[in-house]
Order: sequence, then C-alpha cells, then structure tokens
Amino acid sequence: MSEDLARLQRALGYRFQDESALLRALTHRSAGHDNNERLEFLGDALLNFVIGEAVFLRLPKAAEGDLSRMRAMLVREETLAVVARRIELGEVVRLGSGELKSGGFRRDSILADGLEALIGAVYLEGGFAAGRDLCLRLFAPELDHLPDPGTLKDSKTRLQEHLQAAGRPLPEYTVLNEEGPPHRRSFRIRCRLADDGSESTGEGASRKFAEQQSAERMLHNLIESGGRHA
Amino acid sequence: MSEDLARLQRALGYRFQDESALLRALTHRSAGHDNNERLEFLGDALLNFVIGEAVFLRLPKAAEGDLSRMRAMLVREETLAVVARRIELGEVVRLGSGELKSGGFRRDSILADGLEALIGAVYLEGGFAAGRDLCLRLFAPELDHLPDPGTLKDSKTRLQEHLQAAGRPLPEYTVLNEEGPPHRRSFRIRCRLADDGSESTGEGASRKFAEQQSAERMLHNLIESGGRHA
Repeated sequence: MSEDLARLQRALGYRFQDESALLRALTHRSAGHDNNERLEFLGDALLNFVIGEAVFLRLPKAAEGDLSRMRAMLVREETLAVVARRIELGEVVRLGSGELKSGGFRRDSILADGLEALIGAVYLEGGFAAGRDLCLRLFAPELDHLPDPGTLKDSKTRLQEHLQAAGRPLPEYTVLNEEGPPHRRSFRIRCRLADDGSESTGEGASRKFAEQQSAERMLHNLIESGGRHA
Repeated sequence: MSEDLARLQRALGYRFQDESALLRALTHRSAGHDNNERLEFLGDALLNFVIGEAVFLRLPKAAEGDLSRMRAMLVREETLAVVARRIELGEVVRLGSGELKSGGFRRDSILADGLEALIGAVYLEGGFAAGRDLCLRLFAPELDHLPDPGTLKDSKTRLQEHLQAAGRPLPEYTVLNEEGPPHRRSFRIRCRLADDGSESTGEGASRKFAEQQSAERMLHNLIESGGRHA
C-alpha cells in the first residue's frame, strides 16, 4: 500500500480490510466505470443521519426548523470540502485526465463526493458503529463550535421575528420591476413597513432572492437605527 | 395502557419501555408543546438512510440517479401515509381540537409526520438495529415490489434517452408565450425535433413544468407512431 493511502487511513481513524473498497471510494467517475458514485449515495445518506442525530442531541431545546438549518449548514458541499481538505483528500482522489488537468482535485464538489464515498465504504465494511464514529470524528471541529441557530435563519424570517417581537405589523413585499428574457430575468422588490412607511429595495435573478435582499437591508436599517420603535 | 396503543406496538413489532416516548411520538404540534416535531426530524433522517441502503443493496447495478429517484418515491409523504394507514396510525395520533374537527387524522402530512416520529422514538430507545429493523418491516411491501428504475425518470430525461438510443438529435425547447402577474405566471413551451421538424407544446405555471409536459407529449407521439424513425 502506498504511503498516501496509509496516511489517509490514519487521518480517517479507520483501516480498510479490503483495499479495493478504499480505492473505489477514491475513484471519481471521470476515472472509470468502477467509480464512487454509488458509495457517495450511501455515504451522503449516512452522514445526513449521523449529523442530524448529533445536532438533535447537542441542541435539546432547538425546534425542528433550527435542527434542519443547522444540519444543512454542516452537510453542504462547502463544509464537506473543508473537512475533506483537513484530511488532504485531494492528494489521493483518482481522476480522469481531463479533470486532472483542470485541477479537479481542488474542486469542492469532487472533494465532497469523495468524502461521502469514503463514509459509505467504511459503513459497508465496518458497519453502523464504524460509519457513525467516522462521521463524528471528521466533523468534531464543526460540531464542537455550532453557531447560534438564530443566525442561520434567512433574512425574511429574521425580519419577521424581529418585527413580531416589537409588536409591529408584518412587512409587505411588492414587485417594482421585472425585466429581461426568461432565462435571464431580473427582479426589483420593495419591502415596506406599513406603520412608519419605511422602505428598502432588493434586486436579484429571482423574486425570492430579491425579497431576501430587501429584507436583509430592512433588518440592517432597523438594527442600525437601534430601538427607534422598540 | 390502552388497547389502541398495545395494538399499535404489535403492528410496529416494537414494544416501548418508556410509554411517554411513545405518546410524545404520537402527539402532533396542534396538541401541545411536548410534541413529535423533533422526533420527526430524527426519524426522517434515519428512514432516508435505511431506505437508501435498502435500494442500494437491492439494485446492485443501479446508478446513483436511479437510487435517488427510487428512494424519493419510497419516502415521499404519499408513500409514508400509505404505510401509516397500514398500521392504522390515524386511530392513535393525538391532535388539537381544531385538527380533530377538520379530520386531521386522515391527512397525509399528519400521518407521515407521525410515522417518522415513531421511527425516531424507536431509534432513541432501542438503538440503530431496532430502528433499522422497524423501517425495513414497515416498508417491506414496497421494497419487495420496487418498480423498474427507468419508469421513475422525468419526461425530459426519458425523451432524451429515447432520442439518443435512436441516434437522433436532442430536442429544442422554446418559450412560445409567458404571461400573467409574477405570482400567477403561465408558460407555454414548444418541444421541437430538428431532424424531422415534429413539435409538441406544454403549458404550466413554471417553465420547468411546461417543458416536462411538452416532453411527455413528444414521447407519447414517438411511441404511438412506433419506430417510424427507429
């Protein structure tokens, strides 16, 4: 076995009995037919469950929405790539020549997929306890520093809760402008508070995105102006 | 313990040591603060993993996309409600008076949430093997009769594969019309095959839906006309 693979297994805290399973988990679809896509499916599902359970246990008072947002933050591609870089997974993923040339070993999606495939392979060989322990070890730094669940809410939700806490009416969102061809639509939205007439606007490629931006700006204005209404 | 709860546990094949955990799993949020929403989060995650593993093992040749679609079909609300009715879960869910009056015990969403919460509660008390066995027992009829993965693909994908198999060019989708206010937009899409100029159209509240309908109609025409090009 190469030194690279030995090092990876030390970083994982798991030693494969069947080295071919480890190699398959490291093989991106660009490198051949016997690749890690099915293992990635399995590992993704296990990781979702184990991280879900971890936030469930660590946040005993959190409501379901907070648990969902916290898990989504932990298992999104960007976070998985951070974890994958921590174990230097990019050094050992096996890519086709095209992906190699374009630096695929640095890409978030390839690193995240490889990490999930490793988790799937450990589960298949080692069982649930081994798979679960691996997930918890890999994500220990993230799980030990969970952010306040409130900070994960989207801007519209945070604005709504801020206004409700102050006994104020809910904001009204209005489309001010919508233009461009269907595949490159652009929206401008106004967020307005009926009681004092304050307004903010947001722009974006979807109505949803433009609304979020207008809400974020309104929230910023409210917090900046500090308690004019509170 | 009531006869109803004893019957439910026989149907589950699991007997709770802690009856309060069973009661919590059966309590909809409309019936009080100590409800099943957190357990539902946990049970949903476990069910996704166990059903994901089951399709992974039962379809050893299936690609990742097929596994994802098969799992999505099995864990969607509609299927969960079928399973919940099989164990007569509606008889024992605990609802607030509003939900009771409006017949909430018959609603798919309430039954599906209750089923997931039961799975979460069994896992918490009985561990992974008990939770996994429960999922596999509950979904055995569905898992024993998995459909052909190909039938689960969306119309655009099936049309594309049909054309590729016949060595024909890919379809072109064009927006023919787009009208109505932003919250009630309506799209009309044309699907066209460049080689023989055949066309179909689709309508819908989103571009995506209208495209799917136009693809479905084109596929229908191709199969009806049977091998004019094959």
